[in-house]
Amino acid sequence: RCSPCLLGDSSCSNGTHHSGAVQSDPQLFEAQFEELVTELTEQDLTDSVLADALNRLREVLHYNTPGGKRNRGLSVIGSLRELVPPTELTQDAVRRALLVGWCIELLQAFFLVADDIMDASVTRRGQPCWYKRERVGLDAINDSFLLEGSIYRLLRRHCRAQPYYVHLLELFTETSFQTELGQALDLMTAPPGQIDLNRFTMERYKAIVKYKTAFYSFYLPVAAAMYMAGIDSEEEHNNAKHILLEMGEFFQIQDDYLDCYGDPAVTGKIGTDIQDNKCGWLVVTALGVMTPEQRAELESCYGRHDSVSVEKVKALYNTLQMPTLYHQYEDDSYQRLQKLIARHAQNLPHAVFLNFAKKIYKRNK
Amino acid sequence: RCSPCLLGDSSCSNGTHHSGAVQSDPQLFEAQFEELVTELTEQDLTDSVLADALNRLREVLHYNTPGGKRNRGLSVIGSLRELVPPTELTQDAVRRALLVGWCIELLQAFFLVADDIMDASVTRRGQPCWYKRERVGLDAINDSFLLEGSIYRLLRRHCRAQPYYVHLLELFTETSFQTELGQALDLMTAPPGQIDLNRFTMERYKAIVKYKTAFYSFYLPVAAAMYMAGIDSEEEHNNAKHILLEMGEFFQIQDDYLDCYGDPAVTGKIGTDIQDNKCGWLVVTALGVMTPEQRAELESCYGRHDSVSVEKVKALYNTLQMPTLYHQYEDDSYQRLQKLIARHAQNLPHAVFLNFAKKIYKRNK
Repeated sequence: RCSPCLLGDSSCSNGTHHSGAVQSDPQLFEAQFEELVTELTEQDLTDSVLADALNRLREVLHYNTPGGKRNRGLSVIGSLRELVPPTELTQDAVRRALLVGWCIELLQAFFLVADDIMDASVTRRGQPCWYKRERVGLDAINDSFLLEGSIYRLLRRHCRAQPYYVHLLELFTETSFQTELGQALDLMTAPPGQIDLNRFTMERYKAIVKYKTAFYSFYLPVAAAMYMAGIDSEEEHNNAKHILLEMGEFFQIQDDYLDCYGDPAVTGKIGTDIQDNKCGWLVVTALGVMTPEQRAELESCYGRHDSVSVEKVKALYNTLQMPTLYHQYEDDSYQRLQKLIARHAQNLPHAVFLNFAKKIYKRNK
Repeated sequence: RCSPCLLGDSSCSNGTHHSGAVQSDPQLFEAQFEELVTELTEQDLTDSVLADALNRLREVLHYNTPGGKRNRGLSVIGSLRELVPPTELTQDAVRRALLVGWCIELLQAFFLVADDIMDASVTRRGQPCWYKRERVGLDAINDSFLLEGSIYRLLRRHCRAQPYYVHLLELFTETSFQTELGQALDLMTAPPGQIDLNRFTMERYKAIVKYKTAFYSFYLPVAAAMYMAGIDSEEEHNNAKHILLEMGEFFQIQDDYLDCYGDPAVTGKIGTDIQDNKCGWLVVTALGVMTPEQRAELESCYGRHDSVSVEKVKALYNTLQMPTLYHQYEDDSYQRLQKLIARHAQNLPHAVFLNFAKKIYKRNK
């Protein structure tokens, strides 16, 4: 993968063969954002009466789209490079893959802006949530629509002539709907302020993770790359989905574990899942192994903001040896995934999946 | 148009040729709704863990989709019947046109659920706004997304094999974006609670009407029917757009006029545009013809809820002879529209536009 890499490859550990003029995928990705903003707010709609609305869109795009880890966005070009031989990957194809990556980041921004309102969140990526900003408030709902709408403008402008255009339209609309069903399930399982541990089952937990997170974070970027590489058989997509949804589940479980047991100096955030009454893997797993007395104790302190209650929940998790249960789960999941890849990857290069797996297993942030 | 009408035609004034077994378009449209709900909530996604989310979707669909006048939804089949000879219009084509009509009603429901939150509205179509219902609140944001997402599920299920499928996907995504830009303009022109008449210009007013209302209410249904009839040239669409946006503008101006001067016994609603600080045609037109003294008076009472202030605004409108100005505008607009139709309709049957015009000019509700 290294020697024939002409356009720069972020996952290549040997950086020396890249001349100064050639940019890596993350650099190209970064640089493309301003172009897209200009396109969406200047070139594309020239009706002068829209100027104020387009200025608003520019502000919304800048505040809400960058700032994440960009794993999702970069996974499109990352996967495409595994699916298409470097000699067949034109510069235009690379640019389109980066653009589709930005569409995934826009989809995420759309959901995050709206979820923060519904969850009454205060900060996001180290800054106030968009709706919390002065003079924004609930107008943020329409701003979230504009982020979503930008996806389809970009796809139309850049991919309309491609044979996979309609596949991408369907993929984005379908993935959005799945994510919205997941959010609906999440909202009804843990309504802010209402604590009812009876709703916290492992089956429900897995359904929320699958629909709310795994489809758009794991299947969507790889599926987009597959369509862009001309792979559109339902069977191959189902195989990839199987593997990627399993990874997505593991990723979220790990996220839930790190929320409580991660080192804030490493993760960069202080977990609040216990206070926020989240239906996370720790509480769901703990509920399955605790005594009725412990459950009564948990009921009296889960979802509360005082530090005494929070510490009681954490002490209970330790008594139940949650770290041990988690590490057992992590090892099992890793083995299961390797088998899934061996069994389901078929014609797809295993590297598509293994690149993902490498990034997420045994991470501590 | 009457004698060859095999499937029933709502706009046909001679009802006698319809046998008992044959249903009119509005009847077929009505009956199709429950089928679509069943499809969206039962047949389409069979993952049992989604049951609760799909029950929520069913409730959201029932509460928010029916109940309107359905002019937009019925315009698709109405226009298609003008564009395709009756003998060439299969029963399946009729069903698809009704379905696309429901997609427009879903798009409207998506916007109304969200707009009501942003505008802090209380009632809609004679019942509490969805977000005002107990146990809904801001979860209504996600519910609005589910309404939007349902559009693309239905189009995919019913129109995927049609040559116009991608046109419909683009039409719906583009129209959504235009409507969202219009809503952004509207929110920044008349932010709830902030009164600043300097923002109320005729240019801004027309931009809001065009983007927020006219595209989705007037161009969208006819454009959808045109694509379904195989008419996809950009020129013909631009011609139709020209005419339909003019009609949309007239329709909204009339709506604004009736908000103040309509008979609540006929319109079925009591207008509150003055209280709600709306950037409507009356206030914008009045601002253009009043003295500085009258403007100072208006500034002290527009956008206020006490009846003394409201009556002062109405008295000012009467002093300025707003009804006369409106009727002049109505006549001018009607003449302008006839010319536009004569000039721009080209190959399109004029009836497509005249049917609309008949319904909206000189209406009083």
